[in-house]
Amino acid sequence: MGKIKDIKFIMKEYQYEKPFHIANSISAGSQNLEIQLLLENGVIGYGEAAPSYRVNGERVETFPSLESFVKEQLIGLDVRNYRRIFDIMDKLKCASSVKAAVQFAVLDAFAEEVGAQVHQILGGAKDEIETDKTVGIDTVENMAKEAQQLFELGFRAIKIKVGEDLKKDIQVMEAIYEVSKGAKYVVDANTGYTPKEAITFAKEIYTRGIDIDVYEQPVQMENIEGLKLVRYNSPFPVAADESARTRYDVLRLIKEDAVDFVNIKLMKSGISDALAIVEMANTAKIQLMIGCMSESSVGINQSVQFALGTGAFVFHDLDSHLMLIEDEFRGKFLQDGPKIRAK
Amino acid sequence: MGKIKDIKFIMKEYQYEKPFHIANSISAGSQNLEIQLLLENGVIGYGEAAPSYRVNGERVETFPSLESFVKEQLIGLDVRNYRRIFDIMDKLKCASSVKAAVQFAVLDAFAEEVGAQVHQILGGAKDEIETDKTVGIDTVENMAKEAQQLFELGFRAIKIKVGEDLKKDIQVMEAIYEVSKGAKYVVDANTGYTPKEAITFAKEIYTRGIDIDVYEQPVQMENIEGLKLVRYNSPFPVAADESARTRYDVLRLIKEDAVDFVNIKLMKSGISDALAIVEMANTAKIQLMIGCMSESSVGINQSVQFALGTGAFVFHDLDSHLMLIEDEFRGKFLQDGPKIRAK
Repeated sequence: MGKIKDIKFIMKEYQYEKPFHIANSISAGSQNLEIQLLLENGVIGYGEAAPSYRVNGERVETFPSLESFVKEQLIGLDVRNYRRIFDIMDKLKCASSVKAAVQFAVLDAFAEEVGAQVHQILGGAKDEIETDKTVGIDTVENMAKEAQQLFELGFRAIKIKVGEDLKKDIQVMEAIYEVSKGAKYVVDANTGYTPKEAITFAKEIYTRGIDIDVYEQPVQMENIEGLKLVRYNSPFPVAADESARTRYDVLRLIKEDAVDFVNIKLMKSGISDALAIVEMANTAKIQLMIGCMSESSVGINQSVQFALGTGAFVFHDLDSHLMLIEDEFRGKFLQDGPKIRAK
Repeated sequence: MGKIKDIKFIMKEYQYEKPFHIANSISAGSQNLEIQLLLENGVIGYGEAAPSYRVNGERVETFPSLESFVKEQLIGLDVRNYRRIFDIMDKLKCASSVKAAVQFAVLDAFAEEVGAQVHQILGGAKDEIETDKTVGIDTVENMAKEAQQLFELGFRAIKIKVGEDLKKDIQVMEAIYEVSKGAKYVVDANTGYTPKEAITFAKEIYTRGIDIDVYEQPVQMENIEGLKLVRYNSPFPVAADESARTRYDVLRLIKEDAVDFVNIKLMKSGISDALAIVEMANTAKIQLMIGCMSESSVGINQSVQFALGTGAFVFHDLDSHLMLIEDEFRGKFLQDGPKIRAK
């Protein structure tokens, strides 16, 4: 038996090593919510919510006030009935990152209870994955320097933030390419371009002989027609991130043939919708990457377990814990530079 | 560790209590394949393939000759990496019921290994489900008599086979309705009607004040436009069964808005595609039922565990073990008339 006895909501404050700049947004740190889910037999499941107002519309200051509601809903339920708990948490649309954290904590406790790892409960598809690391928006020189350092550290997939200044973005890509030939590039405009700017960017990069492996969310999140326009007018695979929060968003993207790639983030979708998106995308032959918000190692562990278990992802952008300052590493996985291995 | 040491293919022969007659097909019994998957630590996982030439195109006489290929592919793999094994078995398109049996045996061994039940590994959504029972094609009198008996035995969902003779089928529905008012009806034409016949049948039944809860596979399996025509011209929810074998079939049905319901059968889809279909249908708000071929209690156990675990089904048509003659009941569930409970 794995009945839930108590659930603790613990607010945490993390700082970035340096401010993280993406299109139209700069963050100095993140207020996250840690979930500790205690079973009657003493097992504890851990989860973390790293909220995003920009993407999810959720407000972190509301989280502590949700504790008693979540406890009311879940105490006494058994983690061996985890889909019942998933269904309950699916309704908490005001706080999708909290849904994700609680759903994961339930799987974490279930796995502990049966002496397995979450990645095994989810299918144990891979033993190892490799993450990219992200170069935030900065001067051309600083961005190229950072990319070069990452390449020298062994990162063979580099994520590059663009979307504020088309002309500079093209210069950035040229400068980064010069110092990291052989790397794969995930280029993320975070909704910053108009469709025409997005197409111009892709064509300019292509004529320079530079390949982009994933061209992420070039246009506004609600502009599905725009995404599709970019997809059909760009030589690079186009991914939805902000446009793909729920399973319903992804079904629409599939029906409209709007994208080549979807970026799954547990903080947008929770475990329940993320599992549905994996199955739908695998069926529709849309490729997948997995990303993060500003999770610490506790929260990144969630995505690592999900990625190892489902084996569904071509690219892994699980680097926020490498950018935040933490007292101790708390992931249930082994990290060696870009390589992430199951424990 | 749960490494696979051996896999046994055991042919079994079952007889029906009485010949089972559906549209354009009569069966006296079934040759099934039992799978026993032995782990290095002594755990055994059980699965069963109940083949269907009519639906899947597979031939049971080929199954024994597949044993060495399946062993070559799987021996030495760990059931804790069950998605890797699912992916391997997904390629065995010549024998989808064998794929189902092996995939389930892997989950069965994994569950045993960690001291849980398969329905818990899959989410533990329900503690109990209720099955219908099927009235095969016979004279109007015999079909009504059988429906009455089922109703008196407590079955509140009755599946009725039609599709060979439109006029008689209408009489059958009238006669059954008279003796089982309050029951829910799943009416299955097993591809027997033309679209116009199917629409005529539905309208005639409707004008008699009889409600059909699911109107299953009225037209030929490849006729998706025909299914859609019936859906939009029938007052009853239309289901795909023969038209919905793989996850790809169901994606097409969703894209074309062709059906209200899908009938998942593990023998068509295996665990892997069945899980994908659950997620897709839940997203597209298509309702689900789960059915069977001619499984014994070993094979029905697979669908029971799947249905309890995912909790995805409005109707359960898991009655073949109640129609076959078996020496002993071998399901890992409790049955009490129509009620099926988790152990």
